[in-house]
Amino acid sequence: MSAQILDGKAFAATIRAKVADHVSRLMADHDIQPGLAVVLVGEDPASEVYVRNKGIATRECGMKSVEHKLPAETSAEDLYALIDSLNADPSIHGILVQFPVPDHLSERDIVARIDPAKDVDGLSVVNAGLLASGQQAMASCTPLGCLMLLRDTLGDLSGKDAVIIGRSNLVGKPMAQLLLRDSCTVTIAHSRTKDLAETVRRADIVVAAVGRPQMVPGDWIKPGATVIDVGINRIPAPEKGEGKTRLVGDVDFDSAKEVAGHITPVPGGVGPLTIACLLANTVTAACRINGLDEPEGLTA
Amino acid sequence: MSAQILDGKAFAATIRAKVADHVSRLMADHDIQPGLAVVLVGEDPASEVYVRNKGIATRECGMKSVEHKLPAETSAEDLYALIDSLNADPSIHGILVQFPVPDHLSERDIVARIDPAKDVDGLSVVNAGLLASGQQAMASCTPLGCLMLLRDTLGDLSGKDAVIIGRSNLVGKPMAQLLLRDSCTVTIAHSRTKDLAETVRRADIVVAAVGRPQMVPGDWIKPGATVIDVGINRIPAPEKGEGKTRLVGDVDFDSAKEVAGHITPVPGGVGPLTIACLLANTVTAACRINGLDEPEGLTA
Repeated sequence: MSAQILDGKAFAATIRAKVADHVSRLMADHDIQPGLAVVLVGEDPASEVYVRNKGIATRECGMKSVEHKLPAETSAEDLYALIDSLNADPSIHGILVQFPVPDHLSERDIVARIDPAKDVDGLSVVNAGLLASGQQAMASCTPLGCLMLLRDTLGDLSGKDAVIIGRSNLVGKPMAQLLLRDSCTVTIAHSRTKDLAETVRRADIVVAAVGRPQMVPGDWIKPGATVIDVGINRIPAPEKGEGKTRLVGDVDFDSAKEVAGHITPVPGGVGPLTIACLLANTVTAACRINGLDEPEGLTA
Repeated sequence: MSAQILDGKAFAATIRAKVADHVSRLMADHDIQPGLAVVLVGEDPASEVYVRNKGIATRECGMKSVEHKLPAETSAEDLYALIDSLNADPSIHGILVQFPVPDHLSERDIVARIDPAKDVDGLSVVNAGLLASGQQAMASCTPLGCLMLLRDTLGDLSGKDAVIIGRSNLVGKPMAQLLLRDSCTVTIAHSRTKDLAETVRRADIVVAAVGRPQMVPGDWIKPGATVIDVGINRIPAPEKGEGKTRLVGDVDFDSAKEVAGHITPVPGGVGPLTIACLLANTVTAACRINGLDEPEGLTA
């Protein structure tokens, strides 16, 4: 039996529709337009595309979008002064500094400078600590998107055996906290795990977030399990022509989809959820900063 | 075959000896005497005993011990003023407010007021976040003690299957972070876990921290596993006479010790490690605040 393929693009569209709906209610009922500021330092072409796409998505949901483009040689002091002014700006509810930044700047210090309440990327130590202690936090976007997709697919996650492969600060560790909060039994596996195949075979939910192309074969998957593939890896695709490449996940999709109950493809699975959750976090931040109820269905 | 009983009191004594050794070196080489301030609000008799014992243990290691006893009706503002002055006091490296505090005070707000660098109980959101993101943190004392005991017993923990029963902010969750940092494959189980017996049976290391007397029977333990029992529960002991009680852990010691390779008793196992690790954290804080190397063998 073949797995149901989870359509991340379609699910991201439902998140964005919810965001747009909340935004219009915030504007109608409270005269609040959530605002997202994105800061780009330097001229990395890929970053410029990301920033532009975030701006478009933000405006499409009816939110205010502000872009600050700073020259590559911007000093830490000047960048911090901008962050401070955004922290203090009541029309801005989310602040995101596009990474990577030039080498003379510290990503850790930049994140620490952002007001945790406006840290819509959920990258700060304070938000990691709030998440780790079960308090109201900004959860980082990719794991938040995976959580929403899992809830949408499976309903109540309580008691399910979740195995997360990878212990990064960006995905693996916050994913563990989010699934624990939803009362999964959570196992964090990684490169030092003795018998990864056997560990993964126990899982009702597998989240693969290691960045190694197709490392999880189908015969590691328990029949009927839900497989969330966070990996995005580019590999050679000689079948498409000389020098051509294609994107694959951390899971071997072709074999895994024969066993799993549900599986995300790469591309088109988890990828589209990240920007959608950035927008969701911005609405959440706007509600919290203004003392309003949490936007239903958009938070952990 | 019967398990080796891990003597927490003896191991705590080795930690204290290391602390005393570091303290005398800090004083001789750098003229720094680590200082621990303990604040007690109100007159809870049990808390008074704890505070007194901490003071004695602190002085026995050659550190400076300061006790502040405030009346039960102390306002939050007055307590914060004291914490602020201790934060600013260069002779104080660790600050601990003894809990519980009277109802008009917020434990969460009190912990947040303490400089994270002096939060030797490791209770603050910032320290939880630093721990969760793999940075230099103050780890809370009980899980830190369990980690030290596990390292002492097993050596390198890398690749071991660790199952933690309980997901409290005080023990379960920081324990998971510490064991993950030491490259265990970490599973966090709890009341919603589907098959707790089967989950525990996989573990090379079991940490029980739920607060339910003798809930883990011996037949849940994998032969040879290391069992760390954090629970301290008082149960009726009619065999000792009418109305008498005794202390037991979360593990059924008599049956588990027949299967385990190593096991901590209750009392006399994990209990004595907590104050020892409070002292260790105070030395660590003194080193970090003064820009000196981490004290070897006393940190996560």
